[in-house]
Amino acid sequence: MSTVNFDHISASQLLPEVQDAMIDAIRHNYGNPSSQNRFGEEAMEAIEKARMHVADLVHCKNPKEIVFTSGGTESINHAIKGVAFANAERGKHIVISNIEHNAVNRSVKRLAQMGYTVTSVSVNEKGRVDPDDIAKAITDETILVSVMHSNNEIGTIQPIEEIAKITKEKKVIFHSDAVDSVGVVPIDVQKLGVDLLSFASNPYYGPTGVGGLYIRRGISIWPIIDGGIQERNKRAGTENLVGIIGMGVAADLVAKHMDQRYANAKNLRDLLLRELPNYIDEYFVNGDPENVLPNLVSVAIKYIEGESIVLMLDDENYTVSTRSACATGSLRASHVLLSAGLSHADAQGTLVITPGIENTEEDIMGFLEALQGIVTSLRAISPLYQRPANI
Amino acid sequence: MSTVNFDHISASQLLPEVQDAMIDAIRHNYGNPSSQNRFGEEAMEAIEKARMHVADLVHCKNPKEIVFTSGGTESINHAIKGVAFANAERGKHIVISNIEHNAVNRSVKRLAQMGYTVTSVSVNEKGRVDPDDIAKAITDETILVSVMHSNNEIGTIQPIEEIAKITKEKKVIFHSDAVDSVGVVPIDVQKLGVDLLSFASNPYYGPTGVGGLYIRRGISIWPIIDGGIQERNKRAGTENLVGIIGMGVAADLVAKHMDQRYANAKNLRDLLLRELPNYIDEYFVNGDPENVLPNLVSVAIKYIEGESIVLMLDDENYTVSTRSACATGSLRASHVLLSAGLSHADAQGTLVITPGIENTEEDIMGFLEALQGIVTSLRAISPLYQRPANI
Repeated sequence: MSTVNFDHISASQLLPEVQDAMIDAIRHNYGNPSSQNRFGEEAMEAIEKARMHVADLVHCKNPKEIVFTSGGTESINHAIKGVAFANAERGKHIVISNIEHNAVNRSVKRLAQMGYTVTSVSVNEKGRVDPDDIAKAITDETILVSVMHSNNEIGTIQPIEEIAKITKEKKVIFHSDAVDSVGVVPIDVQKLGVDLLSFASNPYYGPTGVGGLYIRRGISIWPIIDGGIQERNKRAGTENLVGIIGMGVAADLVAKHMDQRYANAKNLRDLLLRELPNYIDEYFVNGDPENVLPNLVSVAIKYIEGESIVLMLDDENYTVSTRSACATGSLRASHVLLSAGLSHADAQGTLVITPGIENTEEDIMGFLEALQGIVTSLRAISPLYQRPANI
Repeated sequence: MSTVNFDHISASQLLPEVQDAMIDAIRHNYGNPSSQNRFGEEAMEAIEKARMHVADLVHCKNPKEIVFTSGGTESINHAIKGVAFANAERGKHIVISNIEHNAVNRSVKRLAQMGYTVTSVSVNEKGRVDPDDIAKAITDETILVSVMHSNNEIGTIQPIEEIAKITKEKKVIFHSDAVDSVGVVPIDVQKLGVDLLSFASNPYYGPTGVGGLYIRRGISIWPIIDGGIQERNKRAGTENLVGIIGMGVAADLVAKHMDQRYANAKNLRDLLLRELPNYIDEYFVNGDPENVLPNLVSVAIKYIEGESIVLMLDDENYTVSTRSACATGSLRASHVLLSAGLSHADAQGTLVITPGIENTEEDIMGFLEALQGIVTSLRAISPLYQRPANI
């Protein structure tokens, strides 16, 4: 039996069209996009074509506002540090939510080592931030607000438009980490009202190692990678042409098929949530059912360890995860789940299930059966679990 | 007639073995190296294999001292800004040479905007820095010296070992930009004595968009890209697996074939320099004939514009450049050539010829004939050129 990937948030197979475009770029003798010869011009055309597709995906009217980076993490670092450094004379205060990805958390921690101060705004039990709390956190010293569009562990989508209204009124730059949203849910930078938006390529079946940063024209920001004149002086370094071409094709495909992919993902999510009570008990679903990614289910299963479930599911050919792959290796409970009010035990018992475009309803049903057996076995040996009296 | 690439410093075709490895990685369903499932483990093994090959190429005994980045430019930014930020309490003075790549120049300019001071040490007419001048430039406030291993416009190789002795004695961190040296000439980080060494993958026929930074164990440095736990907390972000795999194969191949590639390159360089006076007059060769890259010839041709020669050579199917592709688009004369004492006119008349492994002696001879015709035509219309009286 081949493995069923329910851990798409960590890794997905590249779409065949993306593979083909990247392979063509590898075989083809492209030049350096900065060279003024025919090969360089061809390479530059390929990059600008990709930039148009990526701009279209986030409904950015001016492709010049898109900068290619080495991935979501670089985009986030660029946005946060770039704004902090460029605006240091205006102030050194930054506002974030307390469930941001570590790329945000550690960027602001780094800035705190350099004299910046950070206010981390709490989310409610659904993982949602209250825009009023953001407004209250903003001071005269605030130069940047950074709130993620969707959370990669619980799937909660934040009220970005409402926050943008506040930051616009208060003249504070607003960045949103949309790494797990772009290519998954419709994103329109105009409608959202953000100044900066970070995103990657792999969430929509493009390659890793390439990402994008939307920088609204006129925003005061420094590059974090200085050097040559690439990316209109906003991001130096010879371009990752193969990756950028792959990202462009992936962006084009998902823009064309967004509705269908969204509907399919939501169908699998709904099926999983509808059937789950028929297979296990004593669990709860994390996040906000009304504002959630269609392709993510976070479920806390009581009395057992998520890590054990992941390993046993792997033996039965289902890959899921307990949290962001970026945080693997850390033994601490997820800061996202604790911030949403979970106990340490419930946080440790949480599974993140992220189906992808190749998954079927049969995959969900097979997964539920496997999960039922594993939960039963693990609870049988759990000192915390009390069998219901009538069994 | 197919095009002869004498602009390898800008772009090269990937080696077939590199292409095949990258294509295999694209087709293969790799996981996320940070995931603790079988796919993630497979991906992590591929990365660690590449890291061993790259470490071997620079004679680094401990592969943990190698960090993968998105290219030479990121490596340089990481080294310079990472050391500057981490050591700000010790001092804020940096010493560089005045012919560094813009990745170094603009990184230190950025730091100057943040309160750091920079001393730029002059090179001689061969483009070489005097280690004594570096010693004199170091003050009690100096935290970092950055001198490139070889220059990408004139090919001059710097006395890195001698500088390293000085920085070691003065307890200053020493970084060398070796982007155009690694994979071209033998590099041994132990022998050189550097603390940090930046390099890329494309100079030895690997992909763009991936590079490496050697960080000697114990060196105080911050990441410039913070976030997940990748690269042992030294460089966050989901890895560019396809690029890293390509770089590993390219590093392995060049380490095995260094002697032969060096001899072939030197043979073509020697042939070009030996024959050049039989084809054109009133020119001179930039750089240091005794300390020079084997694969680069920089020649200033008097009374005409390098840009015009490049365009006319392109029409005859030879690609060369006037300078680093990273600086294309700038109308200013090369700071490297001016620093080496050239007049503006001679700097504007400079061609950079960088043959590669696929080039032959016939390519050189054909190039010389084309060059002869072009130089004759351009000088015929040059207001600066005085025909010798006896013609």
